[in-house]
Amino acid sequence: MSAHMTPEEFRLAAHRAIDALCDYWRTIESRPVLCEKKPGDIAAMLPAHAPEDPEPWDAILGDVDRIVLPGLTHWQSPSFFAFFPANASFPAVLGDLISTGLGVNGMLWATSPAATEIETRVLDWLAELLGLPESFRSVGGIGGGVIHGTASEAVLTALVAARHRAVSRAPSGPAPHCTIYASTQAHSSIVKAAMIAGLAANPDDRSHLRLIETDADHAMNPAALAQAMRDDVAAGRVPTFVVATVGTTSSTAVDPLARIGPICREHNAWLHVDAAFSGSALICPEHRWMIDGVQHADSFNMNPHKWLLTSFDCSCFWTSDRRSLTAALSVTPEYLRNAASSSGTVIDYRDWQIPLGRRFRALKLWFVIRHYGAAGLRAYIREHVRLAEMFESWIKGDDRFEIAAPRTTALVCFRIRPGKGESIEQADARSRSLLATLNGSGKIYLTHTTLPDPAGQPRHTLRVAIGSTLTEERHVRAAWDLISSTVA
Amino acid sequence: MSAHMTPEEFRLAAHRAIDALCDYWRTIESRPVLCEKKPGDIAAMLPAHAPEDPEPWDAILGDVDRIVLPGLTHWQSPSFFAFFPANASFPAVLGDLISTGLGVNGMLWATSPAATEIETRVLDWLAELLGLPESFRSVGGIGGGVIHGTASEAVLTALVAARHRAVSRAPSGPAPHCTIYASTQAHSSIVKAAMIAGLAANPDDRSHLRLIETDADHAMNPAALAQAMRDDVAAGRVPTFVVATVGTTSSTAVDPLARIGPICREHNAWLHVDAAFSGSALICPEHRWMIDGVQHADSFNMNPHKWLLTSFDCSCFWTSDRRSLTAALSVTPEYLRNAASSSGTVIDYRDWQIPLGRRFRALKLWFVIRHYGAAGLRAYIREHVRLAEMFESWIKGDDRFEIAAPRTTALVCFRIRPGKGESIEQADARSRSLLATLNGSGKIYLTHTTLPDPAGQPRHTLRVAIGSTLTEERHVRAAWDLISSTVA
Repeated sequence: MSAHMTPEEFRLAAHRAIDALCDYWRTIESRPVLCEKKPGDIAAMLPAHAPEDPEPWDAILGDVDRIVLPGLTHWQSPSFFAFFPANASFPAVLGDLISTGLGVNGMLWATSPAATEIETRVLDWLAELLGLPESFRSVGGIGGGVIHGTASEAVLTALVAARHRAVSRAPSGPAPHCTIYASTQAHSSIVKAAMIAGLAANPDDRSHLRLIETDADHAMNPAALAQAMRDDVAAGRVPTFVVATVGTTSSTAVDPLARIGPICREHNAWLHVDAAFSGSALICPEHRWMIDGVQHADSFNMNPHKWLLTSFDCSCFWTSDRRSLTAALSVTPEYLRNAASSSGTVIDYRDWQIPLGRRFRALKLWFVIRHYGAAGLRAYIREHVRLAEMFESWIKGDDRFEIAAPRTTALVCFRIRPGKGESIEQADARSRSLLATLNGSGKIYLTHTTLPDPAGQPRHTLRVAIGSTLTEERHVRAAWDLISSTVA
Repeated sequence: MSAHMTPEEFRLAAHRAIDALCDYWRTIESRPVLCEKKPGDIAAMLPAHAPEDPEPWDAILGDVDRIVLPGLTHWQSPSFFAFFPANASFPAVLGDLISTGLGVNGMLWATSPAATEIETRVLDWLAELLGLPESFRSVGGIGGGVIHGTASEAVLTALVAARHRAVSRAPSGPAPHCTIYASTQAHSSIVKAAMIAGLAANPDDRSHLRLIETDADHAMNPAALAQAMRDDVAAGRVPTFVVATVGTTSSTAVDPLARIGPICREHNAWLHVDAAFSGSALICPEHRWMIDGVQHADSFNMNPHKWLLTSFDCSCFWTSDRRSLTAALSVTPEYLRNAASSSGTVIDYRDWQIPLGRRFRALKLWFVIRHYGAAGLRAYIREHVRLAEMFESWIKGDDRFEIAAPRTTALVCFRIRPGKGESIEQADARSRSLLATLNGSGKIYLTHTTLPDPAGQPRHTLRVAIGSTLTEERHVRAAWDLISSTVA
């Protein structure tokens, strides 16, 4: 037999790994946030061939320090302000550790009832915490929640369910020409989902996909959506799927669900709400204006792995129409049949997602909610929003900059205000140069986007997304001091 | 601020969790393999609402013992012979622990170069260990490997790439009618992928999908494939995607690549090889007959999380045509643009997969290969194959049973031989009853399938899949003793 690590060897190795992780988290502020390696630097440190013989654990763990750590961009750094955060937390790490250690596959209820039933219950908890309608809960309803890996998988799943429902409802004859709608500011995963689903041949194909114009606040214009849907109906097409974004990636703009919802209802189109980042803020009632109208939605998605302390991957998806979901995704060969599934009394989550197999991801979310409590999670979100307000006030008070988009939660978008006699292009060039200098410093990491100014001119826009697990006021102050002193 | 666990609190909690996992692995044989809970039993132990206030770690860890463990089907039990195994191992758990603890998202090269470059290198290592053609390696070629979550995602990704290539090559005009081929014994994920991709409206839709008949060994009949493709061409359709299975789920039948490959080439169809389970055996040269002809493949997939000691999820996918893959999946909004990606000198794995975000999964595979060494992995596979041969010999030596399919690696398929005057239906009823009794005993867990007998009659077939991490000869002997003494 091969040389398995014994439980006792594992115990010692794992204790050392834990200690190394503690050291990493303690010293993470001292590392350059954005990795400084060049393409090929890491590969050059790795042998060209796999080892024929076993290597000692010392060598393996040593290479984490020697090769891995210097090759990372430190998403858990408190000075990581790029993209959106990818929250890790110790309770989530513990949940994930136990999940991996138990090594179960919850593809069917029968293959680990606890994995399914804890997931169902915890998603009901979270739906309530977020203020979602009761129709999204599994208890007593025809809805329910499931954990996907990412928001990309969530939107693809919703699209496939929406198409299946539209095709099922269509009169017999040729398949309906299904159309999809999202704002021009919606996430690239929607275009990607359309490509995967066969509704776009390439990112620019608009045969099925409509990107709806946005208003000055970068949120979807509902009148334009209504017009696009009417035009499609007039042309014999079937409006099928609408993605409303609650917190766009570029600027956290909030599409107006209360106006979009009734338009979707009128056309029997599936309304999916992508709240990947901003959804976490809904645990605080003061942010629930963002989902006014959510009762019209057929599905809703938010990522606790972004801003709710649950280590990647954990993307929560709820639907109020689980039959359309399972009808679109269920394929049951003989080798998966079992008494519990056939009884119809259990959830088999394989039919709620793209893959068949699945990790026990609910464990980490369960741990996080229990460790922090709802009150602790609210306090966490509120502190980041407070820091974002503070940062925004500094931008507003400095006439070298201007705010590029309304701040809705914890993302601040700003741009360089052109100086006297300076063109917009020159100001944007300074912005790009500022960004490169800031990220090259190793002290902070932020990313950019493009947003139109009031005149419709696309502008290079800096994004400071506040929401990393360890980010405190001092980190935001230090970031502002660096930005303020670096800008030319 | 909210109450984060401090590194010191985490250290203590994690050491306890590790100790609990050691206890679990030490005592796993004493637990009923298949969970004995009824639907709703676990849910009834969970509060209806999330806690408002934090709970102590003692309560949380205690509920793992109290609620979780009794609610599991123990995939890591050495007496788990169901489905295919889902190998966990201590080195993989350590890799996953460190991955979660570092909390990076490797969606782009720039967002953690080590996550990308270690993955690329380790997939090159593994391609070599498996005896795959050099065209699948990233070094110096136009191919390369990537880690997906599951084989379902792998086949969907390959299908989308295949369709994109076929559409790109088609003359302008209406989109080609793309057709897909797999054997009647191929995995349900292929039908599901067709549904997701919009090429099947439901599991029975054969407008684009052809399920090719199999021979007596349950492997695809190449002549029938060739005929189906010719028929489609004659009807103006475009043969686009062929899945050949190396180790089917029902019986580990091996589709003959050497005959299928040239047929695919003739039609310029993408050949995807699904070796999810049996692929691990390819690290032993004596099993490479199974991929004779693999040089014709455009993509190849095997799951180290099934039988190569790498905890779920880790599904390795290689392509010899990475440009078709990225062309089908790449969508680049402004907020993801960066200097490294624009330089064209790095791999951004987001364009090789369905989701955008991704875990650092290569770490656990790297640890496994280094801990065991290639020699250790070969020894591991060979021991399971030896045990399967042994089990097969016992079936062959007992005239109450008969072998239902050729054993190719470590799965033994067998059925009850009808007794004197007993009908096939009666024998199958005894088989179903035997299975229920065995699984109800808690001592072993196996699953069933349906396979045709030589007369083409579908028969209830028992599957004993040997390959769990801890399975030793004594467990296989005990399983046989139980089966042999239980059969009516």
